[in-house]
Amino acid sequence: MSVSGAGARPEAGVSSLRWEERPEGPVLVLLDQTRLPLEEVELVCTDVPALVEAIRTLAVRGAPLLGLAGAYGVALAAARGFDVEEAAGMLERSRPTAVNLGHGVRLAVQAYRAGLRADGDGARAAAAALEAARTLHREDAGASARMARRGAELLDELLPGGGGLRILTHCNTGALVSGGEGTALAVVMEVHRAGRLRRLWVDETRPLLQGARLTAYEAARHGMPYSLLTDNAAGSLFSAGEVDAVLIGADRIAADGSTANKIGSYPLAVLAKYHKVPFVVVAPMTTVDPETPDGASIEVEQRAGHEVTDAPSLPGAGGGFAVAPPGTQAYNPAFDVTPPELITAIVTEEGVVSPVTRDALGELRTRSRSGNGMMSA
Amino acid sequence: MSVSGAGARPEAGVSSLRWEERPEGPVLVLLDQTRLPLEEVELVCTDVPALVEAIRTLAVRGAPLLGLAGAYGVALAAARGFDVEEAAGMLERSRPTAVNLGHGVRLAVQAYRAGLRADGDGARAAAAALEAARTLHREDAGASARMARRGAELLDELLPGGGGLRILTHCNTGALVSGGEGTALAVVMEVHRAGRLRRLWVDETRPLLQGARLTAYEAARHGMPYSLLTDNAAGSLFSAGEVDAVLIGADRIAADGSTANKIGSYPLAVLAKYHKVPFVVVAPMTTVDPETPDGASIEVEQRAGHEVTDAPSLPGAGGGFAVAPPGTQAYNPAFDVTPPELITAIVTEEGVVSPVTRDALGELRTRSRSGNGMMSA
Repeated sequence: MSVSGAGARPEAGVSSLRWEERPEGPVLVLLDQTRLPLEEVELVCTDVPALVEAIRTLAVRGAPLLGLAGAYGVALAAARGFDVEEAAGMLERSRPTAVNLGHGVRLAVQAYRAGLRADGDGARAAAAALEAARTLHREDAGASARMARRGAELLDELLPGGGGLRILTHCNTGALVSGGEGTALAVVMEVHRAGRLRRLWVDETRPLLQGARLTAYEAARHGMPYSLLTDNAAGSLFSAGEVDAVLIGADRIAADGSTANKIGSYPLAVLAKYHKVPFVVVAPMTTVDPETPDGASIEVEQRAGHEVTDAPSLPGAGGGFAVAPPGTQAYNPAFDVTPPELITAIVTEEGVVSPVTRDALGELRTRSRSGNGMMSA
Repeated sequence: MSVSGAGARPEAGVSSLRWEERPEGPVLVLLDQTRLPLEEVELVCTDVPALVEAIRTLAVRGAPLLGLAGAYGVALAAARGFDVEEAAGMLERSRPTAVNLGHGVRLAVQAYRAGLRADGDGARAAAAALEAARTLHREDAGASARMARRGAELLDELLPGGGGLRILTHCNTGALVSGGEGTALAVVMEVHRAGRLRRLWVDETRPLLQGARLTAYEAARHGMPYSLLTDNAAGSLFSAGEVDAVLIGADRIAADGSTANKIGSYPLAVLAKYHKVPFVVVAPMTTVDPETPDGASIEVEQRAGHEVTDAPSLPGAGGGFAVAPPGTQAYNPAFDVTPPELITAIVTEEGVVSPVTRDALGELRTRSRSGNGMMSA
C-alpha cells in the first residue's frame, strides 16, 4: 500500500474508490476517510491484504462503498494472479456484519467462477470479475443519479416558486459512502447544479462528527454555500424560518415506512412537523426491509460510551481525552427511528412514496421487482 | 494566587466560592472551573488582581456567582487595606457585560462607604463590605433553596404517584454558577434528597459541553444516578417514554414568558410538547426582564465559529484542532428562545407561574416587589 497526497487528485468531485490500470499492474485507489478533512490521502492497494487493512481501519466505509470494495478486491486478486477464493474469504471476514461487503464479494466471485468454467482462462475470468465490480459500481452510481433527479423534482413540487432552497441535512450521505453521489447529499448536489441551493445547513452529527468532517468536506469541494452547526442549533433555524426542507438518508426502512437513521434524525423530524417543513428520506430500494414490519421491530444498537464521554480524536491531531468525570455512564444509541407520519416522502431510485404508508411502499417494491419502477413521483 | 489540589476540599457538595479567614489574612477561595472535571483545583486569591485574572479566564463564571465574586472582591480589598475604589473599578471592568458582577461590586462598595461615613474606621467599613457580600450570598442560597422546594412540589403535582422521576436537563444550572445549589439542578438535588430521582439525563450541551463537564461533575459528586448523552439523542429518550420532565434554567425571561436559554433548549421544548412531557423553567426573579416584551425582542448573540469547527479543548489535555475543513462557516448562536406556549411552568423563588402568561408573570413580579411573594404554586 502506498500513500499519495491531495495533489494526485485534480478533479473537483470526491472519488472515494477507483480502479486504475498502471504499468506495473492494476491497483485499487481509496480515499483514506480516517484522515478527512485535515488531509486528503490516497491509499493505493496492490493486493487484498492491503485492502482488508483499509476496510478494518475504516479508511473505506459506508454500506454501498464496502460492496464496491469487496467486488473490486476480488477483481484485484484475480488480475494480479492471487488465489481468488482465499482473497474472497479474507475480504468477507474483514467486516463480518457488513451485508453489502459480502454481497459485492460474492457477485465478483460468481462472475470469476463462471469465466473459469466457460474457457478455463484465468485472464478472461479476471476480466469477468472486474466487469462485475464495474457493473455494481455503475448500478450504484445510476441509483444515486435517479434518486438525485427524483428528489430534486420532489422539492420543486413541494416548494414551487423557483427561489433558492435552504436545506438541512444530518450525517454524511454523499459520494464518500457511495459509488455515485450518494443519497440525500446527491439530491443536494442536483439542487446545487441547478443553481437553486441557497444554503446547506450541515448538522455536525455528534458523536462521530460525520457532518463536520465529511459532509462539510464534500460541500466545500463542490463550492456549495454551507454552514456548520451543532445538532442542537437546528431548532433556532426552524424557529427563524431558515429551513425549507430536511433531507436525510436511511440505515433501514421498515415495511410501514419507519426509518432508522443516524441518531438525531428523529428530533429533526419532530421539529420539521412542528414548523410544517418537508422532511424527506432519500435511500435506495435495498434499504427497504420487508422483513421488518414496523419501527418497534428495529433493534437499536448502543455504541461505546467513550464516544460521548471523551473528546473527539483525529489521527495525528490528538483529542480523545475525557471531558466527563471518570465513571460517567453514557446513553449512546447509534440511530433513532422516525415514524412514517413524520416523513413527508421517501425518495428511492425507483420512485417516490408520499404520503408514506405500508401499502404505497409495498406497491413500489412490487413494481421495482417487476422491473417497472416508474411510479409517479 | 496559590493553587491547591482536591485534597483540600473534603466536603461532598460543590463550593465554587468561599471566604476564609487565615492567619496571614482573609482570602477568597475559588474552584477553577476551567480545569473541571479533569482536576479539582482551587485558586486562593489574596488580592483583587488575582480575582480579576480568575474572572477574565472564566475560572469563576455564571451570573449569580460573578455577583458574589464582585462583592467579596471589594470586601477582600477593604480587609487587606488596598484602595477599595480602585479595586471596585478593576472588578467592574474585568467583564463589563456581566450585569450581576457590577451589581455585586456596587452593593459592597456602598456598604463600605456607609461604614466609613459612620465612624471613619476602615476596619468597620471593611466588615460592612464583607457583611454585604455575605448577605448577597445568603440571599442567593436562599433563593436557590426556595426554587428547589417549589420546583420539587410542582413535580409532585404534575407527576403524582410517588414513583421515581427521570429528569432531562441541559447545560449547567447548579452550585457552580450560584451561591446556593443553583436553579434547575437545585430542583434535581431536592428530588434526589427525597429519594425520588430515578435518573438524571444530562445533555452534553454542545458546543462548550457544560453538561458533560460541569453538570455530570455535580451529579457524580452527589451520587445521583445519571447518564450523559449527545444533545441529539434526547429524541430517542422521549420516543421510548424515558423522560418524565425537562428542567432547564434561563438567561433571560421576557414579559410574556418567552425564555432565552442555552442553545438546544428550544428543540427540547418542542420534543416535550410532542410527547406531552412537562417542560419547566427554573430561574430567579432577577431573570424576568419586564423591559423585554416578548421573544422576538431578545437579540441572540452569535458566538465564534471555532467553537463548532474545532474539537473541544481542555487545559493540559489538548484538543482545539480543526474537525471541519478550513474556511468552514459556522452558525453558532449562544442561546435560543422558547415561547410561553411550550413552557409548562416557570418556577421562581417567589412562586410558580403555570400556565405561563404575560398577566400571571406580571402579577408575580408585582407581589414579589411588594414583599408578598407567597403566590400559590
